[in-house]
Amino acid sequence: MNDQTPSRAGGRAARRAARAAALPDHLRPVRPGLTGGRYNPLTEAEVARIHGAALDALETIGLADAPPSGVAHLTGAGAIQGDDGRIRFPRALVEDTLARANRAITLHSRDGKNDLTLSGSRVHYGTAGAAVHLVDVSGREYRESTVQDLHDAARICDVLDNIHFCQRPMVCRDIPDMVESEYNAVYACTSGTTKHIGMSFSEPHCVAPAVEMLHMIAGGEDAWRARPFMSNSNCFVVPPMKFASESCQVMEACIKAGMPVLLLSAGMSGATAPSTIAGAIVQAVAECLAGLVYVNAVKPGAPAIFGTWPFGLDLRTGAMSIGSGEQALLTAGCAQMHRFYDLPGGAAAGASDSKLPDMQAGWEQMCSNVMAGLSGCNMVYEAAGMHASLLGFCHESLILGDDIIGQALRCTRGIEVTDETLALDQIAQVCMGGPGHYLGTEQTLSRMQSDCVYPALGDRTSPKEWAEQDKPDLIAKATARKEQILATRPAAAFDPALDAAIRATFAIHLPEA
Amino acid sequence: MNDQTPSRAGGRAARRAARAAALPDHLRPVRPGLTGGRYNPLTEAEVARIHGAALDALETIGLADAPPSGVAHLTGAGAIQGDDGRIRFPRALVEDTLARANRAITLHSRDGKNDLTLSGSRVHYGTAGAAVHLVDVSGREYRESTVQDLHDAARICDVLDNIHFCQRPMVCRDIPDMVESEYNAVYACTSGTTKHIGMSFSEPHCVAPAVEMLHMIAGGEDAWRARPFMSNSNCFVVPPMKFASESCQVMEACIKAGMPVLLLSAGMSGATAPSTIAGAIVQAVAECLAGLVYVNAVKPGAPAIFGTWPFGLDLRTGAMSIGSGEQALLTAGCAQMHRFYDLPGGAAAGASDSKLPDMQAGWEQMCSNVMAGLSGCNMVYEAAGMHASLLGFCHESLILGDDIIGQALRCTRGIEVTDETLALDQIAQVCMGGPGHYLGTEQTLSRMQSDCVYPALGDRTSPKEWAEQDKPDLIAKATARKEQILATRPAAAFDPALDAAIRATFAIHLPEA
Repeated sequence: MNDQTPSRAGGRAARRAARAAALPDHLRPVRPGLTGGRYNPLTEAEVARIHGAALDALETIGLADAPPSGVAHLTGAGAIQGDDGRIRFPRALVEDTLARANRAITLHSRDGKNDLTLSGSRVHYGTAGAAVHLVDVSGREYRESTVQDLHDAARICDVLDNIHFCQRPMVCRDIPDMVESEYNAVYACTSGTTKHIGMSFSEPHCVAPAVEMLHMIAGGEDAWRARPFMSNSNCFVVPPMKFASESCQVMEACIKAGMPVLLLSAGMSGATAPSTIAGAIVQAVAECLAGLVYVNAVKPGAPAIFGTWPFGLDLRTGAMSIGSGEQALLTAGCAQMHRFYDLPGGAAAGASDSKLPDMQAGWEQMCSNVMAGLSGCNMVYEAAGMHASLLGFCHESLILGDDIIGQALRCTRGIEVTDETLALDQIAQVCMGGPGHYLGTEQTLSRMQSDCVYPALGDRTSPKEWAEQDKPDLIAKATARKEQILATRPAAAFDPALDAAIRATFAIHLPEA
Repeated sequence: MNDQTPSRAGGRAARRAARAAALPDHLRPVRPGLTGGRYNPLTEAEVARIHGAALDALETIGLADAPPSGVAHLTGAGAIQGDDGRIRFPRALVEDTLARANRAITLHSRDGKNDLTLSGSRVHYGTAGAAVHLVDVSGREYRESTVQDLHDAARICDVLDNIHFCQRPMVCRDIPDMVESEYNAVYACTSGTTKHIGMSFSEPHCVAPAVEMLHMIAGGEDAWRARPFMSNSNCFVVPPMKFASESCQVMEACIKAGMPVLLLSAGMSGATAPSTIAGAIVQAVAECLAGLVYVNAVKPGAPAIFGTWPFGLDLRTGAMSIGSGEQALLTAGCAQMHRFYDLPGGAAAGASDSKLPDMQAGWEQMCSNVMAGLSGCNMVYEAAGMHASLLGFCHESLILGDDIIGQALRCTRGIEVTDETLALDQIAQVCMGGPGHYLGTEQTLSRMQSDCVYPALGDRTSPKEWAEQDKPDLIAKATARKEQILATRPAAAFDPALDAAIRATFAIHLPEA
């Protein structure tokens, strides 16, 4: 059962010896793609009612503002444009689309080592967003985010086990030209990590230059199309129930370029979506179903992630709020709807309203992250580093987020019930003539690595040990870890010939490595 | 539908007006006793296997070290003492006890305003523990906890909406005599809050003086027995599978005094309980079932809380660890077993390994607190203020814990699905000829108080507002709130005549108010 054959006499030395032998990946306590879904915020009847209301909304209200190309795609598929210009979706069209949509998507990594399989209730966590500030924790300052900040974020993501993908979390405010800014963002992320990356192109003409760069990085268009290691987040709707014309055109361009798309509906509950959790979910589901019809009309079976991202609002002030229990429920409810449709889905969790990585940030980031995992959300976006209701990104918080998500993943993995784990034999042996404790049992020693997630920076010392270590500060530890990561050459850096070719073609702002 | 009749034109002024009208208790967004249980870490088959293994453990392994009175009670009820001295429990005895046990307990408050009804999956949060340190956040120091610290904790609990009971969280290290220390703890808690309080008497002779004081406070023995506002936490077992003889005698004394008891099994997973989550739950369930038989043998139907409190261990060091995902699963799994038995149950959650109220404390306290709520745990103990793996208690953290638990309760309350909340009519009105947003709809305005939990100290300002407010520090805000609470006379203070009578009978260490 255990090839580490520890001495039953056990004790601390034996435990240390046991953990020295590193585990193969499949025995690690947590990993990308663990299966969640034990938490069901909705009953089956409630799920059916939300689905029914979304179908009703699509059939009777529909969506306004489709671009001409979208009108052609959608009406060609069977949607109906009314005299009011709105596109309405007959139930049968939505149901047929649901039956034929792509149910299992692979989000490729550049090196093949961190591919993500989105299906069932497999859970992955990563960054996302469009923060405009970088949070400087030592100075307690918010300053404009830069392409270097983005590159550093990608490099940090690359080394954190529990950050499974790197969707661009902040924008490059030091590059005013939009096209240039966006291909520099592709460069900054891709040269920082080999994990799957995500972008969110603002306008259709931003897509082609970025795709040209992606082809170069992949080693040609065929190689890119075989393993697209980047997806695009499309805010294809302006809630409530309006298509975002330009973003729809971006989406069409991405689909044609072979890029998986995230159908992102980001309503704000109480402002651009109903204030009730159920209503916000209904609207987000309706909007994403419209998007799914759209994608499949452009290209049947094109990989699309069902991106119901309703956000909360502080109704007292009308300001966005992301750290509440209502937010965690919005996300968990959406994840349950994804499971109902058996579609790859994603939602936002793990962000904080707090300006700094303080106790509030900890509780807010954990609340929605763990509930997203338990509810089986395939893609948990904005899961680390995000502050100030999505306005600020913090490298130290990203590093600490790896610890948060590690514990959230442990919860997602759940409780293993087997004859061995029920431990009846072990209880009998320990209690009746045995040592009266479990510290040195074979099961304790053999499972200490595979069952438990140990924090990287979280502190478990006693008050006495803590004082002897001069009372280490959590944030200072995260800053030290950040500096250590950024002091080494990124493993994901391009080889010099490729880098030179890219720099010959594009105005790259990051300095050469 | 809404007697606040806001203007549909809406906007910030209307929202402010709407929230100025305070809601009656039953419409508050969260309150004690919300129903959880939407999260099921175990399948039904797994629950049955754990139950079966616990019955097997009781029948074949049994418990050692029952005191003579316990042997008499248990064998009188049908348990069997073996030649090895262990008491074993035939399945039928356990099943009969389960069938007849008290399924719905009221934990009374002193003034009747905060009674807790433990049944089904109604969730309550409160303090508990036996911390030996008070955490001084300004000095980053751990110092010995005092009776004044305990009294202050009770006073803070009294004013925090989401702290539903005040079980003694720390010991009075400034009172060396045990009897005196324990009745002073009763005084410190009871004079600090009218909410239900909890103690944990160390030795049988500590009970009588405390009960004498409780009779005085209640206004006589009959009044006390009619509404016992204190319960006792009995560590009646020394895991694995041994009765704690003295604590069993304490328990018998408490039962006879009409005090609800918490049957507390606090195994440490990997040391005094199996290292596997399932195994630790099996053992805790078996031990508490033995306790339930014991209680019902002493007094059929006596109010007892099924206190499966398995704790985690850092297997690398053998030190206790309370802030892990494994801990959250232990607690949630136990809560599901309580629901299976339909018995009032409690477990520990919301404590941190961190020494200070920092980001780690936030994520650890939220993780297990929200999972305890979602799993429908009747009594979530140690839910606020607890640090350093239960060694330290922190008043500021207790205050911030009220915010954490508020959000956890919001998650526990879940998603309301009705025609109104599905909001199809509202979506149609807003989108087709309406304003295109929901800020001023009747539903948004009328539900803004009843649907949303607003943090007391958590910060939701924008970076700009935050800077304008001089970047307030979360912990400094908590300290200011603490000082504000403690600067006023406690509402729970005894009237002068009663206080004088108590002080004439007992050596009370707290100064007169």
